[in-house]
Amino acid sequence: MAGMLFTRHVTLSLQQNSRLLLPCGRYISQAAAKKNVDFEYDGPLMKTEVPGPRSRELIKQLSTIQNTDAVHFFCNYEESRGNYLIDVDGNRMLDLYSQISSIPIGYNHPALKKVLQQPQNLSTFVNRPALGILPPENFAEKLQESLLSVGPKGLKQVITMSCGSCSNENAYKLIFMWYRNKERGQAGFTKEELDSSMINQSPGCPDYSILSFMGGFHGRTMGCLATTHSKAIHKLDIPSFDWPIAPFPRLKYPLEQFVKENQDEEARCLEEVEDLIVKYRKKKKTVAGIVVEPIQSEGGDNHASDDFFRKLRDIARKHGCAFLIDEVQTGGGSTGKFWAHEHWGMDDPADVVSFSKKLMTGGFFHKEELRPKEPYRIFNTWLGDPSKNLLLSEVLNVIKAEDLLNNAVQSGKVLLDGLLDLQSRYPHLLSRARGRGTFCSFDTPNDATRNKLILQARNKGVVIGGSGDKSIRFRPTLVFKEHHAHLFLNIFNDVLADMK
Amino acid sequence: MAGMLFTRHVTLSLQQNSRLLLPCGRYISQAAAKKNVDFEYDGPLMKTEVPGPRSRELIKQLSTIQNTDAVHFFCNYEESRGNYLIDVDGNRMLDLYSQISSIPIGYNHPALKKVLQQPQNLSTFVNRPALGILPPENFAEKLQESLLSVGPKGLKQVITMSCGSCSNENAYKLIFMWYRNKERGQAGFTKEELDSSMINQSPGCPDYSILSFMGGFHGRTMGCLATTHSKAIHKLDIPSFDWPIAPFPRLKYPLEQFVKENQDEEARCLEEVEDLIVKYRKKKKTVAGIVVEPIQSEGGDNHASDDFFRKLRDIARKHGCAFLIDEVQTGGGSTGKFWAHEHWGMDDPADVVSFSKKLMTGGFFHKEELRPKEPYRIFNTWLGDPSKNLLLSEVLNVIKAEDLLNNAVQSGKVLLDGLLDLQSRYPHLLSRARGRGTFCSFDTPNDATRNKLILQARNKGVVIGGSGDKSIRFRPTLVFKEHHAHLFLNIFNDVLADMK
Repeated sequence: MAGMLFTRHVTLSLQQNSRLLLPCGRYISQAAAKKNVDFEYDGPLMKTEVPGPRSRELIKQLSTIQNTDAVHFFCNYEESRGNYLIDVDGNRMLDLYSQISSIPIGYNHPALKKVLQQPQNLSTFVNRPALGILPPENFAEKLQESLLSVGPKGLKQVITMSCGSCSNENAYKLIFMWYRNKERGQAGFTKEELDSSMINQSPGCPDYSILSFMGGFHGRTMGCLATTHSKAIHKLDIPSFDWPIAPFPRLKYPLEQFVKENQDEEARCLEEVEDLIVKYRKKKKTVAGIVVEPIQSEGGDNHASDDFFRKLRDIARKHGCAFLIDEVQTGGGSTGKFWAHEHWGMDDPADVVSFSKKLMTGGFFHKEELRPKEPYRIFNTWLGDPSKNLLLSEVLNVIKAEDLLNNAVQSGKVLLDGLLDLQSRYPHLLSRARGRGTFCSFDTPNDATRNKLILQARNKGVVIGGSGDKSIRFRPTLVFKEHHAHLFLNIFNDVLADMK
Repeated sequence: MAGMLFTRHVTLSLQQNSRLLLPCGRYISQAAAKKNVDFEYDGPLMKTEVPGPRSRELIKQLSTIQNTDAVHFFCNYEESRGNYLIDVDGNRMLDLYSQISSIPIGYNHPALKKVLQQPQNLSTFVNRPALGILPPENFAEKLQESLLSVGPKGLKQVITMSCGSCSNENAYKLIFMWYRNKERGQAGFTKEELDSSMINQSPGCPDYSILSFMGGFHGRTMGCLATTHSKAIHKLDIPSFDWPIAPFPRLKYPLEQFVKENQDEEARCLEEVEDLIVKYRKKKKTVAGIVVEPIQSEGGDNHASDDFFRKLRDIARKHGCAFLIDEVQTGGGSTGKFWAHEHWGMDDPADVVSFSKKLMTGGFFHKEELRPKEPYRIFNTWLGDPSKNLLLSEVLNVIKAEDLLNNAVQSGKVLLDGLLDLQSRYPHLLSRARGRGTFCSFDTPNDATRNKLILQARNKGVVIGGSGDKSIRFRPTLVFKEHHAHLFLNIFNDVLADMK
C-alpha cells in the first residue's frame, strides 16, 4: 500500500510537469468547461510488465474464490482518468477497450462524479426500488430525458433491465408473446394453454424460434445463448433450442475491389435466411423473430453492407417476423451515430432494439404493437436501476455538449486511416482493416499472433481486445480524440516493427 | 410539484410533533448510535386513497412509455424512512413487502447514506468495471468481507451477477458443465462437441435437465423460466424445455394436527422426485441438478419440513445430481437465520446457493468441485457491480451490530402469533397462518378476497403482498421490530373487522 501511494505521487507529479510541457495532450471537458477544467494524463507510463507483481498477487488471492484465468490485471480505478486506465502496479495505459466497450465517457468523468456528489441524488443510490410496482416519482421523467431522448426511430416504448443478457431474453419473450397474440387473434388464453404452460408444454409454451446468425453474440443466459454462435466455449455443455442459424456475410476487403463477390455473398446469406424461415415453419418451429447485430462485435467484428440489413429487415416484414437489432455493443455512439443501425438510413428500421453497456442500464425499445397487454409478463424484481438512469442522463448531456458523435467520426477516421496505413506496411500482420467511427478492427494471421500483439501492445501501454478467432477490436470511449488515435498508432507501429 | 412540497412539509412537521408525543415509535439505529440518532416515523399517516391523484397522474404519464398495470403507486423515496414507505401523495405506509423483499435494512438507512457520502467510494459508483477481466484492487477483499463472511457452509467459491435470474441461469450452466465433465472424465472437448455446440446440437449442447418443483419460482429468463411454475402468466407463449417437474408438498395446518398426513405427503413428493430422475434418465434428458426454494416464495409461500429437505438433498447425492438452493428471496436473514436452509441443520446442505434481492447483488456460492476449469465459461461484461458489494458490506455490518437475525426471530414471533390469533377470530378470512422469522403468510378463501384485503390494508396504511393464488405474504425489512408487528396487527384487525 505504501508502494501504491508512492507510485500515485510520482504519477501525479509527472502529470503536472508534462501538462506544462505537452499541452497537446491536454483534455478539456467541454461540458464542464465553464466551471471545471479537467485534465487527462498525457500518455501511457509503464513501470512493470503487465500483469505486474501486485496484480499477480491479487490474482492469486482472487483465485481462492473463483476462476481468474480471464483476469488481465487489477485496476486502480480511483486514479484512472478519461482514456487512461491505471493498474495496481502504477502502469498507466491508453485504453481502447474500455471495459469491453462499456465505459461511455472515460474514467472518472467530472460530470458523473457530480451526480454522486449531489445530495438530492443520494436516495436513488440507496433505495433501489421494484420499478414495476413502485416506481419513484421522477421515473417517467428520467426515462424521457435519458433513454427516450435517444430512442430509435419509431420505437416509443422502453423497458429497462439490469444487463445485456436480460435485455435480449426479455426482448425475445416480448416477441414470442406478440407473435402468439397475432395467431390467437382476439381470443383469450385457453384453459389448455394455461395448464400446459405450467408444465413447459405446448400449446402454452409453443415451439417458436428466433433466427440468429453464425458468428453472432447476444448473451449467455439460455435463451440468448441459443442465438449466440461466436465461440464454442460459450456454449459447450449447455442444453439449447433447435433454432435456425443463418450464415452471416463474410465480406472480402478492400470492399471496392470485391463489389460483385460481396453482393453475391450477401445475397446468398439472405436467401438462406428465407429458406430457414420456410423450413422452420414446416418443422413447426415457427420463426417469431430475427435477431442481428449491426456489426458482429464478439464473433470477429463482421460487417455487412447497409443494403444487406435493409433487405434483411424487408424479409422479416415479409414473413411476419419481428426484427430485433441487438445494439448492446454497437449502441451509444462509437460508430459515429448513436445507434449503428442509423447508418442504414431507414424509416422503419426495427421492431425492437436492445441495449446495455455504454448506456449504463440494460433494456430495450420496442414498437407499441409489441407492448404486452397484461401486467407481470415482462417483469422482475428490479427491472433495471434508477441510479443507472441518473448516470445515463448525464452521459447523454456530455455526449451532446461535447459533440461526441462527431468526435467518434473524426477520431475514428484517424484510427482507420492509420490502420490501413499500417496494413499496407505490415501486410503479413494486418489485413481486412475495417470499421465505423471508432468501432474498428483488423484481422491477424492467427490466434497466436493476435494474442501476442495484444500482450505486446499492453506492455507498451495500450489496451486493445480480441474479437472472434483472430481479429483485434477497438472499443475506445467516446472521449477518445484524434490525438489519442495518433498516440495509439505510433505505439502500435513500434509493436508491429518489433514483431517483424 | 408545489402540492408535493406542501405535503412534504406537513409530513415532516407531523413527524416532529409525534416524535415528542410518542417515543415508543422511535427507531434508533444501533450501528450509528454513537454519532447519529436516526428517527423513523411513528406510524402510518394517510391523506388520500392509494393510488392518490398524483400517483394516478404519474401512472398515466408512464403509460405512454410502458404497460403500467402492475404499478401500485409512485413513491417518494427521499422521504421514506426505515419501515415507512411514503408515496407521492404524501401517504405514509408501514411497509411489510419492502420492494418484493429486496430492501434489507429499511429506507434511507444512515449507514448506507454514509457509504455514498464517503469520497473514497465515489470511484466505485462512477467506474463500473468488467469484473471478469479487470477487477478493482479491493475486489477479493470486498468479497471476503461481504459475501464470503456469510457464505453457506462448505461453499467457498462465489461469483456475482447483476440479478436473480442471471444468478440462477449461471448456476444452472455451472451445474451442466460440472455434470458433463463428470461424464467426460479426463478427456478434453471432442471436435464433434465443439462443432455441434456452435449449432445448438448434441453432443456439444447435451439434452440435460434441471428438476424443479410445481409452485417454484426461479426467475424469468428462459433457463430459469423452464424451472418456474408459479403462475401461467409468467410462462405463457414462451418456448421451454421438457424438464422434470415434481410435486411440492402441500402441508395441512396446524402441523401438529396433521403429522401423519404431512409425512405421507412429503414421502409421496420425494418418491416422485426419484421416479422423475429415473424416468428422465431413460428419456436421455439426464437430470444434472435439482433446484428448490427453502420456502416457495412466489408460488404461495409453501413450506416443507426440514426433514423433507434433508431427504431431498440425500436423493440428489444418491443420483449424482447437483443440489441448488435458490435463496434469492429467503436469503439475507428474514427467516431468523442468514440462509433459510440453515434451519435444516445440515453439514453439507448444498452444492450451489443462489442469492439476490436483500444482498443488493445477485450471484451464487458453490463448491470447489463445481468450479469451471476454463475461463470465460461463466462470464459476462459486468458480472455484478462492485458498488453493490460496497453497500452489501455495510448492510452486513448493520445486521451484525443491530443483531437483526435475532430481531427477525422476535418480531416474527409477534407477527405469527398475532396472525394465529386473527385466524382464530376470523377463520372465514384467514387460514394456514405460517412462517419462519418474519417470513410469514396466510391463506385467504380466494383471489378476490386476498386482493381486497391487500387494497383495504393499503388504504389503512400498511403495504403487504400476494403470493400464489390466494395467499398473503409478509416480507418486511430486517429492521422490522416487535412494535411494528403490533402496529400492523392492530391495523389489520380493523381491516378484517370491516370485511365482516
